[in-house]
Amino acid sequence: MRLVSSLPRDSQVRIMENTVANAEKYFGQFCTLMASYARKTAKLRDKSDLLVKQLIDYANTENPELRSTMKNFAEELAKVQDYRQAEVERLETKVVEPLKRYGVQLKQTQAEIKRFNKVRNNEIKQLEKLERLRQKSPSDRHTLAESNVHKASVDASRTTQQLEETIDEFQKKKLKDIQKIFSDFVTIEMVFHAKALEVYSSAFQNLDDYDFERDMEVRGLETHHSIRTLVQPCRSAELKTCCQHLIKSIPLQEDTPHINPVQCQLCMCIVQALAHFWPNPGDA
Amino acid sequence: MRLVSSLPRDSQVRIMENTVANAEKYFGQFCTLMASYARKTAKLRDKSDLLVKQLIDYANTENPELRSTMKNFAEELAKVQDYRQAEVERLETKVVEPLKRYGVQLKQTQAEIKRFNKVRNNEIKQLEKLERLRQKSPSDRHTLAESNVHKASVDASRTTQQLEETIDEFQKKKLKDIQKIFSDFVTIEMVFHAKALEVYSSAFQNLDDYDFERDMEVRGLETHHSIRTLVQPCRSAELKTCCQHLIKSIPLQEDTPHINPVQCQLCMCIVQALAHFWPNPGDA
Repeated sequence: MRLVSSLPRDSQVRIMENTVANAEKYFGQFCTLMASYARKTAKLRDKSDLLVKQLIDYANTENPELRSTMKNFAEELAKVQDYRQAEVERLETKVVEPLKRYGVQLKQTQAEIKRFNKVRNNEIKQLEKLERLRQKSPSDRHTLAESNVHKASVDASRTTQQLEETIDEFQKKKLKDIQKIFSDFVTIEMVFHAKALEVYSSAFQNLDDYDFERDMEVRGLETHHSIRTLVQPCRSAELKTCCQHLIKSIPLQEDTPHINPVQCQLCMCIVQALAHFWPNPGDA
Repeated sequence: MRLVSSLPRDSQVRIMENTVANAEKYFGQFCTLMASYARKTAKLRDKSDLLVKQLIDYANTENPELRSTMKNFAEELAKVQDYRQAEVERLETKVVEPLKRYGVQLKQTQAEIKRFNKVRNNEIKQLEKLERLRQKSPSDRHTLAESNVHKASVDASRTTQQLEETIDEFQKKKLKDIQKIFSDFVTIEMVFHAKALEVYSSAFQNLDDYDFERDMEVRGLETHHSIRTLVQPCRSAELKTCCQHLIKSIPLQEDTPHINPVQCQLCMCIVQALAHFWPNPGDA
């Protein structure tokens, strides 16, 4: 009975079944929530699209200077929505869909565990039956029974191994999938936020450059200090040399862009550099 | 009749009334849309909060290594939601509320224009009546009529000037308000995106560091090349020197943070620098 006793006990199989059921439960929820997150993001895009439309309508009723400023602003806002749309699409293909597929795979794994377990239980029963038979007639049919016991125990052992492999595969795949799906989620979000930051920087400059006095046709009332004239040269010369390539190198329609470690490191540096130039309001 | 003819004609007043009505219409729509944008953002925050909760619940059912990774990820995601909450609050106080107040002011301006116009029309009628009186009896009561005509025309002129000033004030305030409100909107969004970028950079690192083999207790199967070991030193030494201060210098609960021109310039540089380290996928 050595082979039989080395097989995982029923309780171990139950633990595994629970583990898969647990994953199924949570990944199902993640899938629902991520789909919902994507939908809410799409609604935010819709509202912003309406705002863009209204801004353009309004711009058309205004004087040239304000008209141009508002139209530019509307265009920048529209760009952010394009990036948001790319974000939504990527979330769907790179997060929601894989989670859905994973749910299907979990069901298959559950069925597989059930099937292997059933086969194994049958094989163990068979083995026990042969054992009893051998004990009843120790001399008669001894050789045949002995050989049958051996065959049955080998079968049971093999099925057990398959069961163990299935479970191992499941665990390994689960951990890799978690890492992949959530890393993709973070990457998609990072790209969107970086793009939005870029566009809004330009939008801010554009709004700031607006000279309302030109629209007012009021001269000499106030000296409009355009912030543009106040802009000091950026302290980091290194940063300036980077100004050639724009972030558009991340294509909008491409699948999840790949973030390499240097880029990730850079993102960290960026926010830290931002803080450097962004002192506490008390200091400003 | 020199004074009367120099007054803005009725059609001009009507144009001004239309301008104010136009502003009222569009600013009302902007107010509704911005409020809606803030609400949709709040809904996105709510969904993310649910996701955070589920991630923590799930983490508690997992092995130590994955548990720690998922909990860290959930915490980073929760941080983004804190920033989103700050974004929502700022949008409400710095964008929606000013737009609402502006709507009220527009109604007051409309009432003021109406009132001045009514007074002015009465004064002009009075002036015309006195003119007719003077023409009917050129000799009789001449001096009195002359003086009355003079007084009425001065009154009408003063009221016209008040009307013009009201309209001028309205235009000036409108242009300044537009610039302020939309600049505040852009600033709020920029701060949120910068903060989100920071947090997700850290979340990406955290997910990437997850070593699933430790959970699998599988040794020697695959060599896990942690991206951490692959991270090359950031090319920009200048950027690195900025790493002391984190972006937390923008306080979460503070009102709209002030973006100064250098910061704005920096934002532009950042996204450009990002692109520098983020080459086209084909080159990577």
